[in-house]
Amino acid sequence: MEKKILNRRRNRKSLTSGTIGKVGMSPGTPVFVGEQKSHKVQIDILKYSQDALTEERDATLEDCIRMREDAGVTWINVNGIHDLELVSSVCDCFGLHLLTQEDITNTTQRPKAEEFDTYLFVVLKMMIYDDTSKDVDIKQVSLILGNGFVLSFLEDQVDVFGAIRRRIQSAKGRIRKRKADYLAYALMDSVVDHYFIALEGIGEHVEDVDDEIVAAPAPEHMHEIHRLKRTILTMRKSVWPLREEIGVIEKSEAGLFEETTKPFLRDLYDHTIQVIDIVETYRDILGGMHDTYLSSLSNRMNEVMKLLTIIATIFIPLTFVAGVYGMNFENMPELSWHWGYFAILGVMATISVGMLLFFKKRKWL
Amino acid sequence: MEKKILNRRRNRKSLTSGTIGKVGMSPGTPVFVGEQKSHKVQIDILKYSQDALTEERDATLEDCIRMREDAGVTWINVNGIHDLELVSSVCDCFGLHLLTQEDITNTTQRPKAEEFDTYLFVVLKMMIYDDTSKDVDIKQVSLILGNGFVLSFLEDQVDVFGAIRRRIQSAKGRIRKRKADYLAYALMDSVVDHYFIALEGIGEHVEDVDDEIVAAPAPEHMHEIHRLKRTILTMRKSVWPLREEIGVIEKSEAGLFEETTKPFLRDLYDHTIQVIDIVETYRDILGGMHDTYLSSLSNRMNEVMKLLTIIATIFIPLTFVAGVYGMNFENMPELSWHWGYFAILGVMATISVGMLLFFKKRKWL
Amino acid sequence: MEKKILNRRRNRKSLTSGTIGKVGMSPGTPVFVGEQKSHKVQIDILKYSQDALTEERDATLEDCIRMREDAGVTWINVNGIHDLELVSSVCDCFGLHLLTQEDITNTTQRPKAEEFDTYLFVVLKMMIYDDTSKDVDIKQVSLILGNGFVLSFLEDQVDVFGAIRRRIQSAKGRIRKRKADYLAYALMDSVVDHYFIALEGIGEHVEDVDDEIVAAPAPEHMHEIHRLKRTILTMRKSVWPLREEIGVIEKSEAGLFEETTKPFLRDLYDHTIQVIDIVETYRDILGGMHDTYLSSLSNRMNEVMKLLTIIATIFIPLTFVAGVYGMNFENMPELSWHWGYFAILGVMATISVGMLLFFKKRKWL
Amino acid sequence: MEKKILNRRRNRKSLTSGTIGKVGMSPGTPVFVGEQKSHKVQIDILKYSQDALTEERDATLEDCIRMREDAGVTWINVNGIHDLELVSSVCDCFGLHLLTQEDITNTTQRPKAEEFDTYLFVVLKMMIYDDTSKDVDIKQVSLILGNGFVLSFLEDQVDVFGAIRRRIQSAKGRIRKRKADYLAYALMDSVVDHYFIALEGIGEHVEDVDDEIVAAPAPEHMHEIHRLKRTILTMRKSVWPLREEIGVIEKSEAGLFEETTKPFLRDLYDHTIQVIDIVETYRDILGGMHDTYLSSLSNRMNEVMKLLTIIATIFIPLTFVAGVYGMNFENMPELSWHWGYFAILGVMATISVGMLLFFKKRKWL
Amino acid sequence: MEKKILNRRRNRKSLTSGTIGKVGMSPGTPVFVGEQKSHKVQIDILKYSQDALTEERDATLEDCIRMREDAGVTWINVNGIHDLELVSSVCDCFGLHLLTQEDITNTTQRPKAEEFDTYLFVVLKMMIYDDTSKDVDIKQVSLILGNGFVLSFLEDQVDVFGAIRRRIQSAKGRIRKRKADYLAYALMDSVVDHYFIALEGIGEHVEDVDDEIVAAPAPEHMHEIHRLKRTILTMRKSVWPLREEIGVIEKSEAGLFEETTKPFLRDLYDHTIQVIDIVETYRDILGGMHDTYLSSLSNRMNEVMKLLTIIATIFIPLTFVAGVYGMNFENMPELSWHWGYFAILGVMATISVGMLLFFKKRKWL
Repeated sequence: MEKKILNRRRNRKSLTSGTIGKVGMSPGTPVFVGEQKSHKVQIDILKYSQDALTEERDATLEDCIRMREDAGVTWINVNGIHDLELVSSVCDCFGLHLLTQEDITNTTQRPKAEEFDTYLFVVLKMMIYDDTSKDVDIKQVSLILGNGFVLSFLEDQVDVFGAIRRRIQSAKGRIRKRKADYLAYALMDSVVDHYFIALEGIGEHVEDVDDEIVAAPAPEHMHEIHRLKRTILTMRKSVWPLREEIGVIEKSEAGLFEETTKPFLRDLYDHTIQVIDIVETYRDILGGMHDTYLSSLSNRMNEVMKLLTIIATIFIPLTFVAGVYGMNFENMPELSWHWGYFAILGVMATISVGMLLFFKKRKWL
Repeated sequence: MEKKILNRRRNRKSLTSGTIGKVGMSPGTPVFVGEQKSHKVQIDILKYSQDALTEERDATLEDCIRMREDAGVTWINVNGIHDLELVSSVCDCFGLHLLTQEDITNTTQRPKAEEFDTYLFVVLKMMIYDDTSKDVDIKQVSLILGNGFVLSFLEDQVDVFGAIRRRIQSAKGRIRKRKADYLAYALMDSVVDHYFIALEGIGEHVEDVDDEIVAAPAPEHMHEIHRLKRTILTMRKSVWPLREEIGVIEKSEAGLFEETTKPFLRDLYDHTIQVIDIVETYRDILGGMHDTYLSSLSNRMNEVMKLLTIIATIFIPLTFVAGVYGMNFENMPELSWHWGYFAILGVMATISVGMLLFFKKRKWL
Repeated sequence: MEKKILNRRRNRKSLTSGTIGKVGMSPGTPVFVGEQKSHKVQIDILKYSQDALTEERDATLEDCIRMREDAGVTWINVNGIHDLELVSSVCDCFGLHLLTQEDITNTTQRPKAEEFDTYLFVVLKMMIYDDTSKDVDIKQVSLILGNGFVLSFLEDQVDVFGAIRRRIQSAKGRIRKRKADYLAYALMDSVVDHYFIALEGIGEHVEDVDDEIVAAPAPEHMHEIHRLKRTILTMRKSVWPLREEIGVIEKSEAGLFEETTKPFLRDLYDHTIQVIDIVETYRDILGGMHDTYLSSLSNRMNEVMKLLTIIATIFIPLTFVAGVYGMNFENMPELSWHWGYFAILGVMATISVGMLLFFKKRKWL
Repeated sequence: MEKKILNRRRNRKSLTSGTIGKVGMSPGTPVFVGEQKSHKVQIDILKYSQDALTEERDATLEDCIRMREDAGVTWINVNGIHDLELVSSVCDCFGLHLLTQEDITNTTQRPKAEEFDTYLFVVLKMMIYDDTSKDVDIKQVSLILGNGFVLSFLEDQVDVFGAIRRRIQSAKGRIRKRKADYLAYALMDSVVDHYFIALEGIGEHVEDVDDEIVAAPAPEHMHEIHRLKRTILTMRKSVWPLREEIGVIEKSEAGLFEETTKPFLRDLYDHTIQVIDIVETYRDILGGMHDTYLSSLSNRMNEVMKLLTIIATIFIPLTFVAGVYGMNFENMPELSWHWGYFAILGVMATISVGMLLFFKKRKWL
Repeated sequence: MEKKILNRRRNRKSLTSGTIGKVGMSPGTPVFVGEQKSHKVQIDILKYSQDALTEERDATLEDCIRMREDAGVTWINVNGIHDLELVSSVCDCFGLHLLTQEDITNTTQRPKAEEFDTYLFVVLKMMIYDDTSKDVDIKQVSLILGNGFVLSFLEDQVDVFGAIRRRIQSAKGRIRKRKADYLAYALMDSVVDHYFIALEGIGEHVEDVDDEIVAAPAPEHMHEIHRLKRTILTMRKSVWPLREEIGVIEKSEAGLFEETTKPFLRDLYDHTIQVIDIVETYRDILGGMHDTYLSSLSNRMNEVMKLLTIIATIFIPLTFVAGVYGMNFENMPELSWHWGYFAILGVMATISVGMLLFFKKRKWL
């Protein structure tokens, strides 16, 4: 219980905390609004062309500036956004608008794609399913696609783009042969691919809860359903805007995306629709689980009540008969019959067997 | 029960399993994600023009290449998509985009129509109603319409296009007189026609369950309603995109569809709308069945409770009367009356008959 | 009950039976899919201009061809569509597309308007309220408006267009002064006018059921509500497409509709919206009736339970008191008091009167 | 009850009665379909320009024709539409289309705006809240705006436009300085202003019913909620089309509305949206009241049941104890103890006090 | 309770009171319709350019006119709108349309943006969360952006724009470097920022109520949920139109907004969408809380009933046994057995222990 309430409080914070404390502040002031973190923000640079590859782990700002100059695709990945000054300097060095800087550090930012004069700015939500808490952790990922470079800002030090880094390093697939736009696409595709894993996790858990409810409904399930509903609601809010987002990117006139990358964007759009479909399906399923819970509960309760009532009903007439022969009238002929007592016991047995048969026939037993 | 849970697990898998395990893989890598199958993938080729017909069962890749060259319509049907290498070679030989190859083998692909430079790619879902499990089996069908040829990929070795093959063989109807676009239309039409059969099957079952619920509601029905709701949800997801799909095909600018085939496409669109209507109607009906179940259950429960309560209520006052004359007061004049006992039995009979009449009058009995 | 289930089975059939058995058949093959009928299909021809009128009842195909030639408006009405050959010959003689022929004989066809090169094809649903079964019978009406002629195909031998025939015969109103487009409008208007009668009938019945439920809810009402909901759903499906349909006709570029007929089409559109409004209102009302049923039922059940429980509760303490004085302790002073018995009867009376007053005060009685 | 059913029957009639009895009649035949009325239809003419004002109460048709000729704005108000001949002559004299005449006299007409060659035709619904029946009376108002004149047809002899007449007479505001289009706007504005009063009335009543339900729920409230829901549904149907209507007027190309009147139309549009908002809010509130009713009812029922069950439960063990000492075993040592009886009474008191304390602790009392 | 009803009455007034009493009045007549207030309306003027700043607290109308002439941005803030004459004079002095004046003083005005020839008129709703009443206070804010000036009218004397004033005074951020359009944006941004605080307050309260319901549901919670639902409904109505509003401003052709301010408007739009998302989420959560309440209530009730029924059920057979041995038959062998009494007590103990074990096994205890 404790954990659940804490859990909820955390969710709650993420709904509004983003802009509070900023009221009246000059817009475009970057403020970090996620959970406070202390690890050092690490910058990784990967510079590649079809035949060359330079990698710089834990790079400095100077490395960024220097490597940007050379030909090829530059991918700068910033692991953490709580070091506002560092984020600001990186942004400035690539000429990002102040509002973009503010959006990068504001983890309550809705997913969106926005086109600026010289770059495309995309905010995504990474979802990581935590099998212990059976909850989905949502982390912000900001991508900036400029001419020849991609910047990625991760809210947290999770290696979400490791697979892509390895693909670049090993020069497998077509990524090394392509421009920065393909890298941006690959990063977005990787985020969307993670949604399937998160949904698989949540889905397994939803089904488990459903099975448990059918077997033995308990008030905890009610809370679990509510928690899951909110999780799905949050996922939905992270996923829905993606649809529109990819539309914005596709229609982008800045020419940042090459024609040959367009089919991949369409494929990404397709996956997004599929994710939305799954989220909506789980929403429907969760909606139905409340009904399952209530009817499972009422089925069990009815079962209890029915059996108890039947027991009571059988004994009430018997008790009445016993009460009759407990009366103290002087003239009660049955009392003096020799087999009276046993006869009446027989009558009682007959009554109860008769009632049991009647209940059986009516299918109440 | 066992079966149902298994059933659900299978459904569950189809929601997300498609892209898991592919995270970080290079997009366009074909991976087979349906149920694993072992049968040999068979390729059937049918080449026809108005007067000529060549048929090649269990053909090789070379046959494909060779037959493609000749004039006339070439229909290549691939029965099974788990042999990735074979599918790839066929695709390559017709110059299909890598993303198309990936979509063909990904059975969790949403139905869609996509236009490429030289071909039109259509993904459909075939529905087969299984009368034993009372469930609908959904299999993917991919169609590629190019200049003079149609490729069809079936997820499974089911003879869904047999009727069309026979129509071509017998040269009946207008199919032999038409181009490849008409063949593509005929295949899609055949898929949509199968929806009506699947819906008929599901519909019969829905009505049967409804009748059973009215007669004798049981917790199983609750689960059955849930299962049916999910089935309908899945069918809905397979059918809704079709609407948009046919729109895409109609508006296609590649000139693959001739003007004379357009009325047939409109007819197909019409049938699709009709299928959607029926699916939505069953959804409404299933939504109402939960209400039927609950009120049927509560009607039965109330009936039980009412009769039992009435029995109890009649005996309670009688037991009280018996209790009164079971008291041991020294001065209780009635006890020594000669007919006291019988008088009191008469009073009891009067009370119970009176109450029964009262209940009858109030329509509680 | 029996009837209801039969009823439902009939409805069920109309959902899917249209295309089953046709799977794999060449599209455009007319198949009759309504209820099988045996009466002879009768063709009525009415040829009129402002001053002339020729009428031909039970005409032959030759009459059709002959009369078409003359100047004036030709209205050919075909009563029945189960004689496929006859329908086909009439269609061929007016140059109708094969798909149009298929749609005319397919009674599960959705209402639609489709423009062909030389004619406009409109499918409507006629609704006839049957006061005995309290159900709405839906019959298909197909209209073809060509240059100078109107074809109408009725699913059944019902005289739905009698009023219009009489108007033409009596040369009243403006119908004789107008072209074929006005006749087509008049026929459609007559179909929509019948909707109001059907809705009036259903509406009366809905209100009657509502009144009955308030007075004495019974499980039958539950089924009746479900039946009515399905009827309204079916009506809705017949009526909604009309909206779009009239839009198609208005925007038709074939020039079949004259400018002066346009205000009448707008009027027809208006009536259609009104019909849709009424259908939606009944849907809302039926949605609410399930709530009425449940609360009416629970009101009555609560009333029963409350009274019974009160009776039981009053007697339980009294029975306890009687039990106390039925104990066999040797030293129970009250037992030997002379007025003990009567005192205890007084106490019992006091208790029961007190409880009754308490219940009364709490408004439970 | 009686009144309510009558009430409902009246509402019911208004849903469909409009077009019944007209089936097969020539379209454009004016038929009066409202409640039959007998008062004489009165025509009031008001002719004004910035400096001149002529008023003619109870005018004749000749007055209409004569006054139309002069310069200035002519406002002809017809109080009642059941005198079909008179309405027809007025319409003819201003050259209105037959369909317009039919719509004016058909009180089931949906609100709409229609543009004809020489005039704009607007149908509105006036709402009058009746404080006695707590119901909203809906009356049709038809406006025709032509070049230099406005015709208004009221379904009933209610002085809804009195305030505007007085404004014209007193030459206050800008109405006398403006053209006929401003008068038409002013009349429509006055109708929309009345909606607020009707909504205020209904709103007060809704809140009163809500308060009553919280205090003491009764089955009547259920019916009242249903009645209010239907009233709100009817209001909704009268108000929603207004939105679209004003759009039609604004986009009208006939040039009947001057540019300076446009901001007022936008203001009117704004008020309409506000009315729709309020109607939707009441709909939501009424939707929630059913829940309030059910939980209020179940709260009260539970309270009754709980107390009664507790009473029963306390006495059942006591009665058992009394029963034990009412047994007739020869060897029951307690029976011969001198204080046995009093000891057992003490035990009983202890049991009951103990149970009461237990119930209290568990907060069941 | 009292407070709640009063509360509701206040809400109720705000729904319709705006236009009542104005029926028939000339449109464009400013009428104050908010709560009556008595404080003096204060005008504050702030005139600034990049280097200069003039401030005038409690200014007169003459100051307004005088300061408008000079170069730079003039911000005139009017604290209160109940002094109609003053508002009118300020409006006249800036040439505002009469309808704008009416909208400024009408506090029931929906949020909207309207473009006039020389200025842009924006109505917003400020939300202030009151932690004592746990309610949100909604105050109207009207902004007029003209060439070089911004007028702001506040419904109440709350210092909502203090932070912006201080930013201007301290010459921090970019506000001093920008034109009047940026000031207008900053004021709107500040209003939207306050929404997050109000939502945070409401959100905390919603979660608290949810926790309380889970712990101990009471009828008060039901009312609280309803109150919160209405509050959220009201907030929704204040927030939804903003979306459209910003669209209107962005598309405004008057050239009042400079190109460099557009990204800030997009940012504002983004925040608005986020606010709408949060409002919708709370709506969903509140919708689910009614379910939580009902199942929490029924869980507790079931718990009570179950335990009580079990107690009753155990004692009923025991009482029957006692009743049997209280019968007065002459020949009852057990009665004369020496250990009969104790044997029967043992039997009774066995029965009750057996039943308890049975209940335990079935998990009813």
